[in-house]
Amino acid sequence: MADSPVTEASPLGLPWYVAGSQLLGLACVVITGVWMGHYRGGYAWDGTTHEFNVHPLCMVLGLVFLYGDAIMVYRVFRNEAKRSVKVLHAALHLIALVISIVGFVAAFDFHRSAKIPSMYSLHSWCGMVTFVLFCLQWLLGLSFFLFAGISERLRHCYLSLHVFFGLALLALAVATCLLGITEKILFTIMPTYSEFTPEGVLANTLGLLLVGFGVVVAYIVTKEDFRRPLHPEEEALSMHFKTLTEGESPNSP
Amino acid sequence: MADSPVTEASPLGLPWYVAGSQLLGLACVVITGVWMGHYRGGYAWDGTTHEFNVHPLCMVLGLVFLYGDAIMVYRVFRNEAKRSVKVLHAALHLIALVISIVGFVAAFDFHRSAKIPSMYSLHSWCGMVTFVLFCLQWLLGLSFFLFAGISERLRHCYLSLHVFFGLALLALAVATCLLGITEKILFTIMPTYSEFTPEGVLANTLGLLLVGFGVVVAYIVTKEDFRRPLHPEEEALSMHFKTLTEGESPNSP
Repeated sequence: MADSPVTEASPLGLPWYVAGSQLLGLACVVITGVWMGHYRGGYAWDGTTHEFNVHPLCMVLGLVFLYGDAIMVYRVFRNEAKRSVKVLHAALHLIALVISIVGFVAAFDFHRSAKIPSMYSLHSWCGMVTFVLFCLQWLLGLSFFLFAGISERLRHCYLSLHVFFGLALLALAVATCLLGITEKILFTIMPTYSEFTPEGVLANTLGLLLVGFGVVVAYIVTKEDFRRPLHPEEEALSMHFKTLTEGESPNSP
Repeated sequence: MADSPVTEASPLGLPWYVAGSQLLGLACVVITGVWMGHYRGGYAWDGTTHEFNVHPLCMVLGLVFLYGDAIMVYRVFRNEAKRSVKVLHAALHLIALVISIVGFVAAFDFHRSAKIPSMYSLHSWCGMVTFVLFCLQWLLGLSFFLFAGISERLRHCYLSLHVFFGLALLALAVATCLLGITEKILFTIMPTYSEFTPEGVLANTLGLLLVGFGVVVAYIVTKEDFRRPLHPEEEALSMHFKTLTEGESPNSP
């Protein structure tokens, strides 16, 4: 690792896994769009179910697809400066956050208009936990890794937690989507769901594709061979840190 | 790592995390038992919903609690011989598999008696994927790690996949339980779920506790500091393998 050149070719297989993740992620966004657009009457911002239809699309686009892409940037942009990749990571997460806030507002606004209580279901509980922890993770990430003034030692201590909770939150976001799919299907087509109607099969397929996206992203991010190589300026810091921690080499995200 | 003694004290914090995981896991099993026993009429093997009630209990006990405990054995039994821990790992997974088969039969048998179609919902699709991959993972694990005749090189290649899919399947098992909770609640108390009835709140709490168990187990298994130390006989193999792979040290599960 210490002898890696600055510009290094992608490890064998990585581009294929990344391409696969993008195909799966885009398929999830398109299928959610088609489900809400074709089977559930389309989109509007009028307090009806058409406004609610914005919710699943925003959540799959923001908290799954863009969130997944944001955590893959360190594997995809291997030779760009670390700081630029960090800014891209934070920016993609911020876009994901804004889109998911629109999605949240769509659901709560529809509930308010239709006089349906909010926050009573397991889907809503898991969604709120995911959202709050995601905001916290974003703020902590910004404070620790993008602002100056935090020691390398503190950054190193927080890094493994940031990586672990980043993946755990992706898993929780996918699980929350699966719960949302089940809720929506049972609220709308419960009597015909067991007859393998096209809408039910489409929704189930969306669920499996979301799981597939999560698994491929997690595989790319955790596979040792796909790790970003240390660049010369990071190596200098790394060696300095190695001395400080008596033989432990720091993890690179 | 190479200088670790054979009997090494547990890393700081590990016993607390393990105790926490057991409290969460047992709470999940007990709450599932109470939900089905108290709110859903109890257990029987008579083709009625009482037979169905065996299903959630078996799945939470087998595919979540015992499965989670099985993947933690390498962190908990740090100083026992590697082969004994491997056998315990395989045995706990086998018990989990048998219990989950009973759970599967309970659901299918109830559906058959009540003339309800099977395998149409996202819960059933995710459950079947989890179960089939779990059987495959168990058979591959047995072939690669417990039978002689497989080269160290092949074992090493498969190990990282075995660990990754082991954790991915735990996540999928937990997500499938959350889907099952949502299905059961919407099939039984949909009209009152939004009034925060005790059964609904209990089921949601069970969902969050299952997520908590999964997160704590995943944290224990992936945290670098909690890794099992290499024992002398493993070190000999490890050094031999290191020479074969030109400087790469093998991962220990």
